[in-house]
Amino acid sequence: MSAQNIAGLDRLFRPRSIAVVGASASESKVGYQLVDALRGFDGQVFPINPKATQIAGRQSYPQLSALPVVPDLVLLGVPANACVDALTEAARIGVGGAVIVGGGFAESGPDGAALQAQIERVCKGSSLRLLGPNTSGYTRPGTGCHACFLPTVQQFAAGPLSIVAQSGGVNLTLALLAHRQRLGIRLAVGLGNAVDVDAADVIEYLAHDPQTKMIGLHLEGVAEGRRLYDVLSHATTLKPVIVLPVGRAQVADFAQSHTGNLMGQHAVTVAALRQAGAIVVDATQSLVDAAVGFLGGRIAPKANPGVGIVTGQAGPGLIILDALRSAAVNVPTLAPATVAEISKHLPPLTYLQNPIDTGRPSPLFADVMVAASRDPAIDAIITFALDEPAAIDAVAVFERARKDIKQPLVFATLGLEGSVDVTQNKLQSRDIPALESPERGAVAVRALVDDAKAQYRRLITTRTVAAAGRVIARALDEASAKALLAEFGIRSPRSRSCRNEEEAVTAFDQLDKPVVVKVLDPRIAHKTEVGGVHLGVRTADQLSAALQKIDAIPGDISDRGYLIEEMASSGIDLILGARRDPSFGATVLLGLGGTEAEALKDVSIRLAPLDRVDVEEMLRELRGSALLDGWRGAPAVDRDAIIDAVVAVADLMEAAADLRELDINPLRCTSKGVQALDALMIWSD
Amino acid sequence: MSAQNIAGLDRLFRPRSIAVVGASASESKVGYQLVDALRGFDGQVFPINPKATQIAGRQSYPQLSALPVVPDLVLLGVPANACVDALTEAARIGVGGAVIVGGGFAESGPDGAALQAQIERVCKGSSLRLLGPNTSGYTRPGTGCHACFLPTVQQFAAGPLSIVAQSGGVNLTLALLAHRQRLGIRLAVGLGNAVDVDAADVIEYLAHDPQTKMIGLHLEGVAEGRRLYDVLSHATTLKPVIVLPVGRAQVADFAQSHTGNLMGQHAVTVAALRQAGAIVVDATQSLVDAAVGFLGGRIAPKANPGVGIVTGQAGPGLIILDALRSAAVNVPTLAPATVAEISKHLPPLTYLQNPIDTGRPSPLFADVMVAASRDPAIDAIITFALDEPAAIDAVAVFERARKDIKQPLVFATLGLEGSVDVTQNKLQSRDIPALESPERGAVAVRALVDDAKAQYRRLITTRTVAAAGRVIARALDEASAKALLAEFGIRSPRSRSCRNEEEAVTAFDQLDKPVVVKVLDPRIAHKTEVGGVHLGVRTADQLSAALQKIDAIPGDISDRGYLIEEMASSGIDLILGARRDPSFGATVLLGLGGTEAEALKDVSIRLAPLDRVDVEEMLRELRGSALLDGWRGAPAVDRDAIIDAVVAVADLMEAAADLRELDINPLRCTSKGVQALDALMIWSD
Repeated sequence: MSAQNIAGLDRLFRPRSIAVVGASASESKVGYQLVDALRGFDGQVFPINPKATQIAGRQSYPQLSALPVVPDLVLLGVPANACVDALTEAARIGVGGAVIVGGGFAESGPDGAALQAQIERVCKGSSLRLLGPNTSGYTRPGTGCHACFLPTVQQFAAGPLSIVAQSGGVNLTLALLAHRQRLGIRLAVGLGNAVDVDAADVIEYLAHDPQTKMIGLHLEGVAEGRRLYDVLSHATTLKPVIVLPVGRAQVADFAQSHTGNLMGQHAVTVAALRQAGAIVVDATQSLVDAAVGFLGGRIAPKANPGVGIVTGQAGPGLIILDALRSAAVNVPTLAPATVAEISKHLPPLTYLQNPIDTGRPSPLFADVMVAASRDPAIDAIITFALDEPAAIDAVAVFERARKDIKQPLVFATLGLEGSVDVTQNKLQSRDIPALESPERGAVAVRALVDDAKAQYRRLITTRTVAAAGRVIARALDEASAKALLAEFGIRSPRSRSCRNEEEAVTAFDQLDKPVVVKVLDPRIAHKTEVGGVHLGVRTADQLSAALQKIDAIPGDISDRGYLIEEMASSGIDLILGARRDPSFGATVLLGLGGTEAEALKDVSIRLAPLDRVDVEEMLRELRGSALLDGWRGAPAVDRDAIIDAVVAVADLMEAAADLRELDINPLRCTSKGVQALDALMIWSD
Repeated sequence: MSAQNIAGLDRLFRPRSIAVVGASASESKVGYQLVDALRGFDGQVFPINPKATQIAGRQSYPQLSALPVVPDLVLLGVPANACVDALTEAARIGVGGAVIVGGGFAESGPDGAALQAQIERVCKGSSLRLLGPNTSGYTRPGTGCHACFLPTVQQFAAGPLSIVAQSGGVNLTLALLAHRQRLGIRLAVGLGNAVDVDAADVIEYLAHDPQTKMIGLHLEGVAEGRRLYDVLSHATTLKPVIVLPVGRAQVADFAQSHTGNLMGQHAVTVAALRQAGAIVVDATQSLVDAAVGFLGGRIAPKANPGVGIVTGQAGPGLIILDALRSAAVNVPTLAPATVAEISKHLPPLTYLQNPIDTGRPSPLFADVMVAASRDPAIDAIITFALDEPAAIDAVAVFERARKDIKQPLVFATLGLEGSVDVTQNKLQSRDIPALESPERGAVAVRALVDDAKAQYRRLITTRTVAAAGRVIARALDEASAKALLAEFGIRSPRSRSCRNEEEAVTAFDQLDKPVVVKVLDPRIAHKTEVGGVHLGVRTADQLSAALQKIDAIPGDISDRGYLIEEMASSGIDLILGARRDPSFGATVLLGLGGTEAEALKDVSIRLAPLDRVDVEEMLRELRGSALLDGWRGAPAVDRDAIIDAVVAVADLMEAAADLRELDINPLRCTSKGVQALDALMIWSD
């Protein structure tokens, strides 16, 4: 599939010949603009028009089948209802790719959806790859191949960034921001309705494109999340991928179980993207700023890379420090030897720690940067100086520094147009990113650091499914759910499952008091609400009262029994849940338990399967993680046992394909281990 | 003070004559650059140099006292150790203001601190106002008055934005970003070490400057927070103030080295700024983007203003919607009549709700915007369109729309340099903000909305101190603290304060069981940790055991007694605390109680005194506020009682000047009211 996808997309995105169906001689029409946009294209262009002989200076043909060659690509500039026939004809003669820029399909109502279903059928029945409909198309500045009618794209320069955007408008937005940042574009694709070619397809294609050095991805929603996750997981081993997922504000979907409530779709998407090694940003400008940071390459994989800050002005340096520390980026203290070396190059009274404040910008910046780069704790350097050509020649400084520094460098600056632009151009042509503001510089260096952390995580992670292939019997009530969890190593307090009062009395005698008495009934999912849970039962009388109350719960009691269970010792409660996301597949959620914490939604989410390293990171992500480390003098809980339990739940989700939802709430954590105090499983119909 | 401050700063910031002490004929020296920077100044300039006769084309004088007039302003271009004498001389002859740009003062160590103390004494003993030391000075493009040696400032255009920055480097950063945004500058001030003139002084001055339309403020730490709060509270009634407070992360070490200021508690600073009606941003670019949003004026005060989004491209429109909704900005559904009106101007199949997606940019934008503006729910409109001169003339569209629309408008766009710049220039000269990216447009419109909300809050708020002037006796143990709280209307469960076992037994008989038995001892602040709290005491034997354990707590027992208190019914626990911040004065904290929530630090902070409106907002700020509204079927708690209690605590802090800290933890909240279950008060020595 992969090699076939790449070859197919190569005809779509790197055509030698292009036909434009619906070509027009009228300059105001899309059919003209599409032909005109190809004026710099270095291959053949064939306008198709039943009547014309010449369009935009090129010989025109009446129909696709009249062409002297089968074109690699066809651009459809005809209305929605004419697209089906044109696309069918293109597929028939063996065209490689097609782009439908126009709208009027699924986004516009039932009639459009019917048309879209028809073009989808055409695509499924052929090897032709379709981009769109309802997109601004794509642009490839290196070959002048602009399958896009907006004149702006003619100005774009070729370069290392490729863009994939769900929206054609955002594709152009990102491309323009890259252009303004003087970051050239290899390929920029707007997916539109994505009837055939989708984000995963293009990412896979770009991962294997040697000239694409970094990939920017814009997502509005993810239909086949697991496939995208798999493709991204591979792509990020080859080059950095920066993703802007829109939809923070979307209301969480209201699933049945409450772990479903905690797990909003956007949170799952962000977790999956990070887990796949992508860098997640929250603004179009940040995507471009993160991308340009990789001009000089990636930081080698490392658990916690350190950043050195060199600044000519203390205030902006402080802003960079604040931005990096707020994003959990390590700005380490420099070694005494480093400080001693730096102090040789600077006047006294300057701050020589990290940040290194030079007091004023000066040519000595290069020496300071080189000295800082020799500190073993420094994996990247960000330097800030206002653009003052009279005080500092930034290009000369960085050229000199670059020779002696292996680590990535980022220059943050600010100045007057016409002056700072020249500096930026020169530096970036030497692969040194130059960004205009302290915060934008911080975004770039943070992306380098996040990428190195993600690569490191991958190196030390193996996500194997221990229980793969194992046959799992459906657990329908709490007792059998706990038994199944026990098979996966997650213990519960000692208990007895009882069918009647006699068995309950016997069980009560055998267990340590107090016990909890619960209803066992596969029809009752929410036991507490109906009076099916009785805590702190110490005496025979209390037991008898509890059993009577359980018997009094309305409903069919033919399958009803009792669970008599020892009370667990106190500790910290977590929620451990899992569910099968319709897009991303098996997901695991770990959160802080207790009423207040649930209201605060302090949770971390991952896709299954999981490695222990993943779970360590999940624990760090919990805002309330300090509770686990010995809060206010309490003993620290057994983190290893928590990690085992979370990995086991991921494993169970992988092994039991028909397990739809799983909810351990609470998972009681103490210094001696963890126990599932309640367990609910929901199976597919 | 105010009128005097304004008059004094007017001589500093609007001088008619300027002397430069340390003027030099050598172009590489600051003493030359300071004179040269005044080449466009429309007043008198006097270089001071004992030897020269002519500097930078101007007649030079040997000393200040030799000048033909007493200058309004003196710029000191001499080393730190020469500044004391020069400043003393300036003060003696009646100079109005001085600027020390150089460093070498408190930021550089003990010797510099001593010099700084000397110049501080000179300022205190005269009416001269000093800016600096250790600053880039200030720039005032309208009069060519650049008390700043950086050549860049010569390019700045005059306009409506004034800037006050703690750091000289950030002052220039903000001014350059404003310049790049084509937003002109009225006055841009870098405070540096702020020996005399501080942020509050300049804000007060700018509040009364008619040409300053919006104020941008950068803070690294706040020494006199309460004064700044008071000044800002007034300034924001007159014009919008946008603040960038640095210090989210732990950056205090470096900050201290840089301006000599101690970094305040960031959460308190942010709370105080918002409470004062300022708009808080987290990046330099955002400060400028928020400021430019006010070019067309403010939104009238309103509880929850609505924003209309008109977009030529759906994807960027969705990004704007997401950014606004994430920031709790109301993007309301349009009225059916509005949709009907809009539909007249657009082709079918477009999305006519909010956002209004026009499908493609077109001249019809103006009609759509006008129709949207007539919807009563719409208080501001943001329009996005990529810069496509062939498809849309944005200037013509907005000129037409502006005529019929009263609400503020924001244009978000993106295009090629040289094209979009022209549009931006033309629109902004017509007071229509134009920002380059969807998110930057969202920042501008969000600022308009946040400002209108803050103004509205002020209109409906009266922060009076009900207990002002009342004499408060110090409460030293829990019983007396609860008695004092009761005087302020905050009840506790029924209890008896007992000196000995006999009284305890009597009290136990009189109270409803179970009770809690606690140690009463002003020397014991943390009762639970030493075994001084015994819950659920139901029998005489349990009482006796509890009393014995309390007696066994080590230490002097001469003042020790018992508090016997009825157990409260269950509910939601809050933490209600107050403390006297060294910078901001009395602060009140409301947070979610319980171990987990405390670890999650879900708190809201305000300065006392408080209005009920403030507390309603504090409750909304709590991430876990849903717990109060009937969580999972529980009855909603009595919000009014919570609000009463918080207002009362603020009142108590205002009334009892020697009450340093107060801690009600927990404040038990039920549907029937609130009760302080524990209370701790710490008084000043």
